[in-house]
Amino acid sequence: MKKLIDAVDDVVLDAMRGMAAAHPSLRVDLEQRVIVRSDAPRTGKVGLVSGGGSGHEPLHGGFVGYGMLDAACPGEVFTSPVPDQILAATTAVSGGAGVVHIVKNYTGDVLNFQMAAELAEDEDIEVVPVVIDDDVAVQDSTFTAGRRGTGATVFAEKIAGALAESGGALADVAGVAKEVNERSRSFGVALTACTVPAAGRPTFDLGEDEIELGIGIHGEPGRERVGLRTAIEIVDAALSAIDEDMPLSGSEVLVMVNGMGGTPLMELYGAYAAAEKWLAGHGATISRRLVGNYVTSLEMAGCMISVCRLTPRLTELWDAPVETPGLRWGR
Amino acid sequence: MKKLIDAVDDVVLDAMRGMAAAHPSLRVDLEQRVIVRSDAPRTGKVGLVSGGGSGHEPLHGGFVGYGMLDAACPGEVFTSPVPDQILAATTAVSGGAGVVHIVKNYTGDVLNFQMAAELAEDEDIEVVPVVIDDDVAVQDSTFTAGRRGTGATVFAEKIAGALAESGGALADVAGVAKEVNERSRSFGVALTACTVPAAGRPTFDLGEDEIELGIGIHGEPGRERVGLRTAIEIVDAALSAIDEDMPLSGSEVLVMVNGMGGTPLMELYGAYAAAEKWLAGHGATISRRLVGNYVTSLEMAGCMISVCRLTPRLTELWDAPVETPGLRWGR
Repeated sequence: MKKLIDAVDDVVLDAMRGMAAAHPSLRVDLEQRVIVRSDAPRTGKVGLVSGGGSGHEPLHGGFVGYGMLDAACPGEVFTSPVPDQILAATTAVSGGAGVVHIVKNYTGDVLNFQMAAELAEDEDIEVVPVVIDDDVAVQDSTFTAGRRGTGATVFAEKIAGALAESGGALADVAGVAKEVNERSRSFGVALTACTVPAAGRPTFDLGEDEIELGIGIHGEPGRERVGLRTAIEIVDAALSAIDEDMPLSGSEVLVMVNGMGGTPLMELYGAYAAAEKWLAGHGATISRRLVGNYVTSLEMAGCMISVCRLTPRLTELWDAPVETPGLRWGR
Repeated sequence: MKKLIDAVDDVVLDAMRGMAAAHPSLRVDLEQRVIVRSDAPRTGKVGLVSGGGSGHEPLHGGFVGYGMLDAACPGEVFTSPVPDQILAATTAVSGGAGVVHIVKNYTGDVLNFQMAAELAEDEDIEVVPVVIDDDVAVQDSTFTAGRRGTGATVFAEKIAGALAESGGALADVAGVAKEVNERSRSFGVALTACTVPAAGRPTFDLGEDEIELGIGIHGEPGRERVGLRTAIEIVDAALSAIDEDMPLSGSEVLVMVNGMGGTPLMELYGAYAAAEKWLAGHGATISRRLVGNYVTSLEMAGCMISVCRLTPRLTELWDAPVETPGLRWGR
């Protein structure tokens, strides 16, 4: 295993040290393992917290800041954060107006966020969880009952974050995150596996000429293994699966062509060109987009395509200013 | 070779199609192979043009926009753009106040930019070239006489771009780019090789437990091959080489911990933490920084560290608003 790391056991902590040093606008608590906006808690503002296993950076810590998350709690690599950690994040951002938890649908995450919410209620903090389950590839998977939560998490964090920033109430902030989830679908494709540092070897084996359609962001099995395909064919497989589940014709959409960590940006732009052509040919119009690495799986090569059917209000919230390490515009 | 591509010969063009579709603020000319700010040329504004081989994205096309480059001309993968292409970019951004060429020091790039400058002079466009040669690893290399140009290119494009945006004159814009180059040094380390699509196999071979210190961004040989080291040791090797060449003690510095394309962001943050500690221990203070993928080598794993000794004026220009696909703040 070749990694740019020191002790295997310290990779998450070392990354948090780097976040702390690199981003003075964040408060990074190495004890509690939370990353918090430096101006939190803000009285009267709904808090927005997310978290999950590390190894998906910039998700979630890179999305903490103005107009997006108030705090993130990174677990060990591909491992859920623990309830105490989620509670610490929740307490840190509670300004009296309640806190929304954005939870990707993995059984461990859902359980730990639920326990943290109960602990927070004991401290008189009202918590509303929103579970993201946008991955159309498979119904159940290695770590999940139901659909997995993937790329739509970025959409939900950005859009709910904008509403919370502008003074939205608890039910409305949670409501818009749910709406984003309902209107979003994702599908991922792996060209290579990735290696969790503590494991020391790839999470799965993929032949020299094989790719996996419908891969999960922790390397969970997808729909099928097939021979190497062109970018156009890969994009077609992803968008066809999405379109079959949520017809896109007639929609204005937000599209993310997301790198899994080990795919050159040049290739992602090529895939985006293919996605734009595919969508135009199926009656959909891309009105907003992201091309780059937003929800990664360590150094996995491949891409995930996520689509959200926009409404004028969602577009407005998407366009609102955001200032985080991983996503920034308007200020 | 596993790549998210269609025809090998079309990878650059396909990526440009994606850039065109994804960034309405850019004018992408697929015939001439140039990426231009949509508001160019602006009368009286000094134009800023850069370019080089593709495969280093977001460099350079991702740095076209407000406060940075006016145009970029991407060559084939790891291959210089041709003079006609550079001329087209130069002509497209000429507003009568002259054009600065930011050229990474590779023999092919230097020659082709020089020819393009001569052709532009024939059209009465005054061109001042600035050659970037910040890589301290080796003196001469596979494609280069003298030092190679690497990470400082990002610093020069941002800082000269800010001065050009604010109305700086031709000599001043070129002057500040030269100043940035003189005050900057870089050093790269490869954990793995990368594969140029047209070649179909890795550009060099690296053993299972080997890394290359001082690697070039096209995989040119560095200083030495050594056994796998920790992030702290790798950062020490890079910063020691830089410090030996340009003593950093007492300086306020801009630091970039740059991923070569295939290294997880989590690891880059860990390396940044090590860099911050190293610099503090050697009497230097980081006052500005970038952590992420800015000058990549396709899917190579590893990192490059770049350091610029700031002055108050350079800091001010660094902080000025920028709006490009790859770098954005302040608007």
